[in-house]
Amino acid sequence: MALDKNIVVLLGGVGGAKLAIGLAQIVPAQRLTFVVNTGDDFWHLGLRICPDLDTVMYTLAGLVDPDWGWGLKGDSVVALETLNSFYGVDTWFRLGDKDLATHLQRSRLLRCGRSLTEATRRLSKSLGVDAALLPMSDDEIPTKIETVEFGELGFQEYFVKHRWQPVLKSIRHAGCERSSLPSQVRSALSKADIVLIAPSNPWLSLAPILAVNGMRDLLTSLDVPIVAVTPIIGGAAVKGPTAKIMSELGQEATPANIAKFYTGIINGFVNDIQNEPLGRSDLRSIQVNTLMKTEGDKRSLAGATLDWIESWVA
Amino acid sequence: MALDKNIVVLLGGVGGAKLAIGLAQIVPAQRLTFVVNTGDDFWHLGLRICPDLDTVMYTLAGLVDPDWGWGLKGDSVVALETLNSFYGVDTWFRLGDKDLATHLQRSRLLRCGRSLTEATRRLSKSLGVDAALLPMSDDEIPTKIETVEFGELGFQEYFVKHRWQPVLKSIRHAGCERSSLPSQVRSALSKADIVLIAPSNPWLSLAPILAVNGMRDLLTSLDVPIVAVTPIIGGAAVKGPTAKIMSELGQEATPANIAKFYTGIINGFVNDIQNEPLGRSDLRSIQVNTLMKTEGDKRSLAGATLDWIESWVA
Repeated sequence: MALDKNIVVLLGGVGGAKLAIGLAQIVPAQRLTFVVNTGDDFWHLGLRICPDLDTVMYTLAGLVDPDWGWGLKGDSVVALETLNSFYGVDTWFRLGDKDLATHLQRSRLLRCGRSLTEATRRLSKSLGVDAALLPMSDDEIPTKIETVEFGELGFQEYFVKHRWQPVLKSIRHAGCERSSLPSQVRSALSKADIVLIAPSNPWLSLAPILAVNGMRDLLTSLDVPIVAVTPIIGGAAVKGPTAKIMSELGQEATPANIAKFYTGIINGFVNDIQNEPLGRSDLRSIQVNTLMKTEGDKRSLAGATLDWIESWVA
Repeated sequence: MALDKNIVVLLGGVGGAKLAIGLAQIVPAQRLTFVVNTGDDFWHLGLRICPDLDTVMYTLAGLVDPDWGWGLKGDSVVALETLNSFYGVDTWFRLGDKDLATHLQRSRLLRCGRSLTEATRRLSKSLGVDAALLPMSDDEIPTKIETVEFGELGFQEYFVKHRWQPVLKSIRHAGCERSSLPSQVRSALSKADIVLIAPSNPWLSLAPILAVNGMRDLLTSLDVPIVAVTPIIGGAAVKGPTAKIMSELGQEATPANIAKFYTGIINGFVNDIQNEPLGRSDLRSIQVNTLMKTEGDKRSLAGATLDWIESWVA
């Protein structure tokens, strides 16, 4: 077990958070760094909303709603419903009353001039999260989705308001060319013994992280295992639009195409036992159960992945 | 009855709102303008809080909590309690979940560059308030209280956090010299047939209004009845620190001292039947019941005041 290894995980929201909690149960917190997609973030109702950071934070804190995999368990929606009933505010983006506390506190810290990295550190430490939780950048790099039906949509309009039903034509990461990696991300990756890419949506959750100025160069300069876990099982995504997007981009929903997405970055791939073998001699791969339904599944996938990586590093 | 008169009311929060709802029941809404103290306003948890505007707005909309006289009836405090339990935020200033909708919406409008006048117009129209509800100024003029125990306190620190228990030495209206009257306030007062000063705290709620640059000059230039209603009944305030503050400023809590506070501005005074007569030959006055416990009391005081003013104007 990789108890003495520094592990950095690149991840998005719900799918990534499942692997994150599995890792957190077997790796000492001081060895674990999570670098989270912030391309989904947006200003909404005057608040800075960071869906993936919050999903990972709430999951690691044991506070996440178990039914949805995001949001806080036992939350109410009085404020949001009142915004609608009193002031006609559109409520397509659900914000619970407890959850509002996080958005209020973060927005206040940002408006006081704190970086998102620092705000996230404070919020996550307050909730007892010991592992390092880092946004991919302190710059705003909103993911924009060009769709057939509506032209360009903000990420949450596409994902939540339209429930990822519009046909995707292309994706851009607005402002990424002027963005920079936080020193904390750079430092964590420089000290990493293992880098994992969680089974999040490559196009929607990982591409924004890879688009941060300097990230791709930094990853390719590392001489450590960089291993992606497949988000595609049996030709489909466990949750969300990965397979749908692949089809819209003219790709078959195969693990081979996921591995291809990470060409030049990864040197290892965790494939699912239900999938066909990757069939690539230039890329190490293993087939295990990657479907994380139970807490045991999450721990098992984390453990199997780390054990396998250690076996080829040793 | 003053059905064809334009009436402007200068007022603070709870006490003023009682007279406001009484007036709203007998005067057509298009004839009524409320100019509200904003010296209590502050930025708190990243939100712009306007306690007196909200108290008057919620009262006129029939939404106010009847037990407290402020806040929304049937409100919960999940977000605030979560701010405390998750992030250790001090919760001395109560903000309900429904109430948060108002603060979020107003803060968003202000940050989009809308004036407080415009934001207030939108909020109050959304809640079905037909009378004009105007902040005394679009400028921030925070009331600062110099106390014996703590030095200078922000208004809400003094009033809510310390429950107006510190001994008051003096009051200032920060920035008032650079402030201006909104054109809507100026226009309403210029067209006013009657100006009423509600039985709010003269030092805490009315002094800020009178401190807005140009307000005192405008009021003294008007040739209409300007009538104050006593906030002191039987040597005490109905609610709040009026009598305590008068004592700390070396004044007896008498209606004569209230009338003296408004010297140069008022030409009429509504005294309470429980008080001694005003005993001033240079100031019209009447003695009626000014204690507003029931809805009928509020309507009666409004009606008696207007009838009396009409009798000496006619």
